[in-house]
Amino acid sequence: MKKPYNEVIDVSRDNPHATGMKPMSFVRQVIASCIYPELIDSDKMPLDVRKRAKTLLECIGGSVGCYSDTIGIPIMRDSVSDFLTRRDEGVPSASGKIFITHGSDHGFGLLLTMLVRGDRSPLVGVLTPVPSQDFGNATLVASGATAVPYYLDGQQGWRLHTEELQRALRSAREVCDPIALYVINPGDPTGHVQSRESMEEIIRFVYEEKLLLFANEDHQDILIGEGCMFISYKKVLAEMGSPFSDAVELASIHSASKGFMGEGGLHGGYLELVNFDPSVQIEFDRLISLLVLPIIGQLALEVMLNPLQPGEPSYEHYQEEIQHIRETLVHNVTRAFEVLDSLPGISCEPINGGASMFPRLHLPHTAIHQAKEEQLPDFFYCSRLLEQTGLCVCPGSDLGLPEGTYHIRLCIMTSVDTMEEVLRRLGKFHKQFMKDFS
Amino acid sequence: MKKPYNEVIDVSRDNPHATGMKPMSFVRQVIASCIYPELIDSDKMPLDVRKRAKTLLECIGGSVGCYSDTIGIPIMRDSVSDFLTRRDEGVPSASGKIFITHGSDHGFGLLLTMLVRGDRSPLVGVLTPVPSQDFGNATLVASGATAVPYYLDGQQGWRLHTEELQRALRSAREVCDPIALYVINPGDPTGHVQSRESMEEIIRFVYEEKLLLFANEDHQDILIGEGCMFISYKKVLAEMGSPFSDAVELASIHSASKGFMGEGGLHGGYLELVNFDPSVQIEFDRLISLLVLPIIGQLALEVMLNPLQPGEPSYEHYQEEIQHIRETLVHNVTRAFEVLDSLPGISCEPINGGASMFPRLHLPHTAIHQAKEEQLPDFFYCSRLLEQTGLCVCPGSDLGLPEGTYHIRLCIMTSVDTMEEVLRRLGKFHKQFMKDFS
Repeated sequence: MKKPYNEVIDVSRDNPHATGMKPMSFVRQVIASCIYPELIDSDKMPLDVRKRAKTLLECIGGSVGCYSDTIGIPIMRDSVSDFLTRRDEGVPSASGKIFITHGSDHGFGLLLTMLVRGDRSPLVGVLTPVPSQDFGNATLVASGATAVPYYLDGQQGWRLHTEELQRALRSAREVCDPIALYVINPGDPTGHVQSRESMEEIIRFVYEEKLLLFANEDHQDILIGEGCMFISYKKVLAEMGSPFSDAVELASIHSASKGFMGEGGLHGGYLELVNFDPSVQIEFDRLISLLVLPIIGQLALEVMLNPLQPGEPSYEHYQEEIQHIRETLVHNVTRAFEVLDSLPGISCEPINGGASMFPRLHLPHTAIHQAKEEQLPDFFYCSRLLEQTGLCVCPGSDLGLPEGTYHIRLCIMTSVDTMEEVLRRLGKFHKQFMKDFS
Repeated sequence: MKKPYNEVIDVSRDNPHATGMKPMSFVRQVIASCIYPELIDSDKMPLDVRKRAKTLLECIGGSVGCYSDTIGIPIMRDSVSDFLTRRDEGVPSASGKIFITHGSDHGFGLLLTMLVRGDRSPLVGVLTPVPSQDFGNATLVASGATAVPYYLDGQQGWRLHTEELQRALRSAREVCDPIALYVINPGDPTGHVQSRESMEEIIRFVYEEKLLLFANEDHQDILIGEGCMFISYKKVLAEMGSPFSDAVELASIHSASKGFMGEGGLHGGYLELVNFDPSVQIEFDRLISLLVLPIIGQLALEVMLNPLQPGEPSYEHYQEEIQHIRETLVHNVTRAFEVLDSLPGISCEPINGGASMFPRLHLPHTAIHQAKEEQLPDFFYCSRLLEQTGLCVCPGSDLGLPEGTYHIRLCIMTSVDTMEEVLRRLGKFHKQFMKDFS
């Protein structure tokens, strides 16, 4: 059947290399040289690439075909620990509290699996933000835990209010045993970046309610808002001092799958535990060692943790690539707001970080009415958009949003050309849709 | 502290690239080119490498950084299915019954997890060969199943006797609900390759006892014995005809981690289900999709499934490398038997396939007596061997063997030089050990 478009563009989830973002050359050069060490001995790669690849190869036993140690290749934990200490300006980090993972989902999934098993109550709950990709997602379901929604404030840039957490916790306690609060910062798909004050409030909340704090900080290097900074939960916690800093149990994750690297296919991440009981750490160590880690993802992670330094031959090109990604993102967001602002019945909260935007659709009543005969209205909109234009975006209901407001998620980690085409298709479709149903 | 050796040689498990085996060049060239596509556009790689890498890159969305489809990259299932149909000389294989995995453990682990959850009885059992790396291993434990040992016959080349299976099954039924028989062929660490007759007997046994059959055929391309052939369980099952061929539920696994490829660090494998209920398949599909697959392991698997064909520029070199691995293995085994035969108190059953040998130690009574004051005698021997020579082998007790006979596992997928050094250290230590305790 002839389609009215040449190819599908899928911006429904964060998959930057599939939407025109280029991988970082240094990362790929190092990994290719580890895979095929003849490249190290030739002059086909820059000197710093060859040096880095040689060091890494020595760490992994001489070949990417060697099995990894179950705790990761030998230098990994220390690399993460040094990275964290630098990032958090001296807040100490111990390699024994760091666990190398297949990526963020893997780390949280295993931790949850362990906590669910150790808990004797019938149903373990995790307070989980809505909207989020992680709401009721595979990791939670597989672990046996249940996601209890708390709603971010779509009228105020998707901020998190403590009152809403309290409401969610009360309602959770009627159906399960809530043990943890899950936060995503920078937000995804919301684009919200939490302020220090908001983080302190959250820390006080989990302290008082005796909840574990799970922080997904996967998008920490993607900040778009003017002057917007990333602060880690670990740093805020440490700086709040006693009684919080030595009591709140925090698990935080990060990976090479998101951010500038965007190496989602390679599977390298870590999880850090803060203030957890040593027995939990030992058991987690045992559990995580059951699934051997792929080597290549760890190599990507290692390069992310130890970026090139000034003076190294590839440094300038590396910086240019990062700068290019940053400029592309800012450009994409600016252009997206220009187009959205020109369209009727669509609005979007400001974006300060992360890889997505999450505009709201103010759908005409007739569209809502017609949709509801078969499906949810946002889904109705998205399926038509896909059918008619080949543009795939994610309906808000897939991210946990209840019936009543309608949103779409579109990823902004794309090339400028892809973003232009996304906006062209969306704009044309949206105008016609609003006309057809007005 | 000064050690009496320069470096540790670890042949306790199958990790060929760590013990001097070279990776297959074509595999590495293709993967390196996918990682760093500039290599495709240059003349630095042979034409068939560039062509293959280009095709694969198109299949994965243009970058190894793209997330894989949860069922694997699009061509994978068909590639496995074509490979199986060729290998089994026309026995049909449907891509819908094939599941791409992180490697063998991953496939069986998930299948077991699912079966354990679906079973209402308190304890699910799997008949598991002893000796084996897989006895009571992480995968089984993590799934919640229990391993019920059946003992291979160490007096007859580690053959499997049906009477022993019957004994094991009877004893299992006293403590759990045995649902599956797990076989490893070619055997690991035993080096035994099953005959068609033996496989038919096993199929009749599982048919009569209504057990699932789990076949680990990871070492299928490593055959050492003169004229020794690999036949898959699937082929034997199909050729036995009714009632077996359409009733016995078989799950078989294979991966790029073992055999000629030996890419244990890359994580690519598959699992095929035969005669399983479609509802089981659907549920398994759902479960396996929860953990996204790493891309690089799939690329390695793809090259394993579609080896170079005569006429392609790299074909001859590829064949030479395979031939070299084969000759190295035969040489290693021959040399190992020469040395072992010259030593007192050590003997070994013949080796026909797989990556290990498993000689028996006839330890002096004084050694056994002294050891037992602290530990198991084979462990006592292995720790001294490691301490004094830096050679790491695996004691039979770690592979499930009960107290009474003593064995060590040593992997034979090593370079000729490594094997010589292994034998030199083992020979010197063993002679002294026997002298010290006689």
